[in-house]
Amino acid sequence: MSSRFIVIIAGGKGERFWPQSRAHRPKHLLPVVGTTPLLAQTLDRVRPLAPAKNIFVITSAAQAKGVAAVCKKFRLPAANIVAEPIGRDTAAAVGLAAALVGARDPRGVFAVLPADHVIHDTRAYAGDLRAAFAAAEAAPVMATIGITPTEPATGFGYIQRGKAWKKLGGRTVFQVRRFVEKPALAVAKKYLAAGDYVWNAGMFFWGVPVVEAALARHAPELHAGLAPVRAALAAGRPLAPVLKKIYPALPKISVDYALLEKSDNVVVLPSTFDWDDVGAWPAVVKHCAPDAHGNVTRGHALVEQGRGNLVFAEGGHLVAVLGADDLIVVHTPDATLVCPKGRAQDIKALLKRVEAAQDGARWL
Amino acid sequence: MSSRFIVIIAGGKGERFWPQSRAHRPKHLLPVVGTTPLLAQTLDRVRPLAPAKNIFVITSAAQAKGVAAVCKKFRLPAANIVAEPIGRDTAAAVGLAAALVGARDPRGVFAVLPADHVIHDTRAYAGDLRAAFAAAEAAPVMATIGITPTEPATGFGYIQRGKAWKKLGGRTVFQVRRFVEKPALAVAKKYLAAGDYVWNAGMFFWGVPVVEAALARHAPELHAGLAPVRAALAAGRPLAPVLKKIYPALPKISVDYALLEKSDNVVVLPSTFDWDDVGAWPAVVKHCAPDAHGNVTRGHALVEQGRGNLVFAEGGHLVAVLGADDLIVVHTPDATLVCPKGRAQDIKALLKRVEAAQDGARWL
Repeated sequence: MSSRFIVIIAGGKGERFWPQSRAHRPKHLLPVVGTTPLLAQTLDRVRPLAPAKNIFVITSAAQAKGVAAVCKKFRLPAANIVAEPIGRDTAAAVGLAAALVGARDPRGVFAVLPADHVIHDTRAYAGDLRAAFAAAEAAPVMATIGITPTEPATGFGYIQRGKAWKKLGGRTVFQVRRFVEKPALAVAKKYLAAGDYVWNAGMFFWGVPVVEAALARHAPELHAGLAPVRAALAAGRPLAPVLKKIYPALPKISVDYALLEKSDNVVVLPSTFDWDDVGAWPAVVKHCAPDAHGNVTRGHALVEQGRGNLVFAEGGHLVAVLGADDLIVVHTPDATLVCPKGRAQDIKALLKRVEAAQDGARWL
Repeated sequence: MSSRFIVIIAGGKGERFWPQSRAHRPKHLLPVVGTTPLLAQTLDRVRPLAPAKNIFVITSAAQAKGVAAVCKKFRLPAANIVAEPIGRDTAAAVGLAAALVGARDPRGVFAVLPADHVIHDTRAYAGDLRAAFAAAEAAPVMATIGITPTEPATGFGYIQRGKAWKKLGGRTVFQVRRFVEKPALAVAKKYLAAGDYVWNAGMFFWGVPVVEAALARHAPELHAGLAPVRAALAAGRPLAPVLKKIYPALPKISVDYALLEKSDNVVVLPSTFDWDDVGAWPAVVKHCAPDAHGNVTRGHALVEQGRGNLVFAEGGHLVAVLGADDLIVVHTPDATLVCPKGRAQDIKALLKRVEAAQDGARWL
């Protein structure tokens, strides 16, 4: 039987949780929700599913140090933490993952999982992952876990399921009818009402041969571009110089576009666990215990005559909010954000202003 | 001819400009408006009116160090900076001032002036002060400068003038008909429309004999309580131990109640200079040059998609406001305030919360 592997994709720019998140300290390295970094929470969740030697983390050069620090507690072999020298979107990362897993077990089955989602029901999560692994082991398919939607979200792509494909451990896995991009609200409402759509959360399960074959067929340039990686791994040569050399020339494309949408062997398991991608500051509130006035505070933070605020302070600094409602105030030692909850999605515009300020990069 | 003296009352709790102002660093020690502390601006304005040796500053023990630092540039003799060991309101300070001036010149005429007002037209200010001094030198009166009102303010007491008393240097000084306390808005509107009311800004001009006689008559307990001060000054003994001993027992009363309202020899000169007591953060905006969106910023402060904000940052810290209007955001190295402009008057409630917080005094 083939071994099970987990590959956690820990990238991301760290913009939406500025000023806590920075280029070198993105969301998955922060305890945005809970008390440990989201990457640590992800590693905790997957621990029952594979031994540490079978768990990989793919990250970026800027974040490698922070990722290694988080992984230390989980005793991942150093070789299992791989830094991409520059970002080339998810298809390249999946190709790299297939090469890494394939070098250990050419018939290995691996999960690709994001590092920065918030999931509280770890038991249901482990059960769903086991069913998805079983699907990928039962046939040469690309299995996905689709998140059962709870609202007509416009920030995610959707997957429409088709007919039932297989029952595995009491769970029904469905054929995938189609992938659809982030919809308008009216369309999202229809999807929710229809009942056969799930959110695409970037959770994939597949065997190395399936991924290699799909890359060779649908993304031949990427597949060929990664050949030196496979060769270096086979020869036991260091990976970093090879990645540095080949990455700039790799096509920059998402795995959804490059493989999933072009393949007819995709199946989907609707999730049974709670899930939140915690896309920006206002989403954090859902996971925190507010006080009697709906305020969520951390550190030396005070709200007087105000409701529904999120106020975080670091170190010995006091942040005092007076007479304001529904504000986000996040203080860090070198930068503070003040923003109404309803405007947090515009943070990229703010960060462009910061970047344009004199010597502004120091705050990014 | 008697000499002219200036006594600047530099007290105040420093609450309304928190977190920039603190117990040991009240408003008059801050450049709330302009680039130098308000006390320095006051000293600058009175410089043409009296030599440094004739200028006194009465302050509190907590602020004495900061006051001395500001006064250094103005070469005030050390003995001219006098710290009250505890606050006993303005009547005690005026009694102390009379003792200090009287020890230099028993017939001296002195002005009592607040340290923390903002006045830009220094030429008109000096002219008005000279006319008020002339009034106090012309007769045994208590002369005041009343601020010509520009709006129906409810935060100040008013002085109703009576008949013209004297022409001095082309200016008409009026008899005072009555002092009235902070009025309701409707009443303030009537005062403004009537045209014979001015704001009481705590600017008094009088001779030592006038003040001593009024104290002896209307505030005999206070006058007697200050006898050891007069004795120490006459004997050239150090003042601090005497003040420490007698101050706790002095009656706590304002000079308006204790003397002005009870006297029938009060005259008033309506002001010709601009004036603002800058009572709280929103008032600062009037004195700053806003950007095209009405935002006033200091230090590393940015506003993206917002209007009418006041954003101050200290040190290398960045304060970034996104999508918010009419907020006050004041960052200092150990505390930050976030408050809608319209709620700044509630800052005392906030500071009570701060005081109640664990180890909260460190931020006060």
